Amino acid sequence: MSNDLLIGIHAVEAALNHDVANLVELYIETGSQNPRVKELGERARELGVKPHARDRAALDRMTGGARHQGVVARYDAPAALPESALADLAAKAGQDALFLVLDGVTDPHNFGACLRSAEAAGATAVLVPKDRAVGVTPTVRRASAGAADRVPIVAATNLVRALKYLKDAGVWLVGLVGEKTAQSIYSVDLKGPIALVLGSEGEGMRRLTRETCDFLAQIPMRGDVESLNVSVATGIVLFETLRQR
Amino acid sequence: MSNDLLIGIHAVEAALNHDVANLVELYIETGSQNPRVKELGERARELGVKPHARDRAALDRMTGGARHQGVVARYDAPAALPESALADLAAKAGQDALFLVLDGVTDPHNFGACLRSAEAAGATAVLVPKDRAVGVTPTVRRASAGAADRVPIVAATNLVRALKYLKDAGVWLVGLVGEKTAQSIYSVDLKGPIALVLGSEGEGMRRLTRETCDFLAQIPMRGDVESLNVSVATGIVLFETLRQR
Repeated sequence: MSNDLLIGIHAVEAALNHDVANLVELYIETGSQNPRVKELGERARELGVKPHARDRAALDRMTGGARHQGVVARYDAPAALPESALADLAAKAGQDALFLVLDGVTDPHNFGACLRSAEAAGATAVLVPKDRAVGVTPTVRRASAGAADRVPIVAATNLVRALKYLKDAGVWLVGLVGEKTAQSIYSVDLKGPIALVLGSEGEGMRRLTRETCDFLAQIPMRGDVESLNVSVATGIVLFETLRQR
Repeated sequence: MSNDLLIGIHAVEAALNHDVANLVELYIETGSQNPRVKELGERARELGVKPHARDRAALDRMTGGARHQGVVARYDAPAALPESALADLAAKAGQDALFLVLDGVTDPHNFGACLRSAEAAGATAVLVPKDRAVGVTPTVRRASAGAADRVPIVAATNLVRALKYLKDAGVWLVGLVGEKTAQSIYSVDLKGPIALVLGSEGEGMRRLTRETCDFLAQIPMRGDVESLNVSVATGIVLFETLRQR
């Protein structure tokens, strides 16, 4: 099956509102008394999608027991873009280009929250290494509040090569590191076309990724935790960029 | 049982490093080949804590099947403080007072990530309503990277009364809202003693909480997601405060 499962009211609503053309099938629980489910069914019909009634047990089976609230859909999710798309994305965004690069974020809640923040910050695209990333799973999609299907995702076979494409397109690479000796992110000029590069929580960026960055910067902290949650750090640097612009 | 279970290397290490006096019992998997587990056992002995050997099945039973990595401890976690402690906390922190108030954040991953950010930002304390908050569960503790046991947590019976204590102590209350018409958080002066107040993701702050705030502000966004993940929003406002100071 090439299409993805959307589970729950929020996920299905997002697809109805933003990408109804790729909503393949909609299943609604027979006799659901939830007014939001009824509303969603009516809205689907208005948009030309005919919901199929299924009993709760069938929806449970379909979703492997996930909390579906009586609403499930099959959805033809946008495919990840290849790294060759980066030059075009950068050119179209021009001075506003804002890429988020996640080198090894494999926790689906964190990845989803990063995608959600990327959308809220108006990011151009999110770039991940194909072999070191979590795909857009139902958990990612839910944690992203649907952003997983709206923010362009570029899955690179070779992340360093992809970063070089960005450099060639005039995008500056700003890597976030944990070292207190690195310059403060607040002293970096984030106004031009940039890519913010973050590594995994445990291990940070890989060495070659790090060496490819034009700048390395840190979020100045107090207290003695080693680092912030990666999705929190991502939110802070994305919104610092927006603040500066 | 009045003491809590610490599960996994990271959680137990944090208690050894920061609060060994309250580590009641330490259990290590018999014959574990993990060098980090061995190291942890040696460090515990140096600190006067004698580890008990248990086989994996016993640790599995103890933790209900959680991923314990061969290390479990019983820990006398610091109790939440009553709201009467707020005036003292505010007075001691003086101009640097920075409270985080979470009105209805019940997801343990989000609550844990908020505590972690609060510690990293050097927050004075985190204030939650007793009846509308998640306790410090093992999931919260893990998501907080141990901050749950290091940041003072105040559990208020009556949140509005607690906020008034803060006001009386000279702390300004800045509530974060979703409305695009509210002033930008970047235009609010966050340099004096303040409390940052956030609501739950779905419903925001309760009406009375909101009405008690001195200022309401928003994080300006692009894109069309309704809001950020609450732990991401918390990180952004905490670190905007640090940037201004």
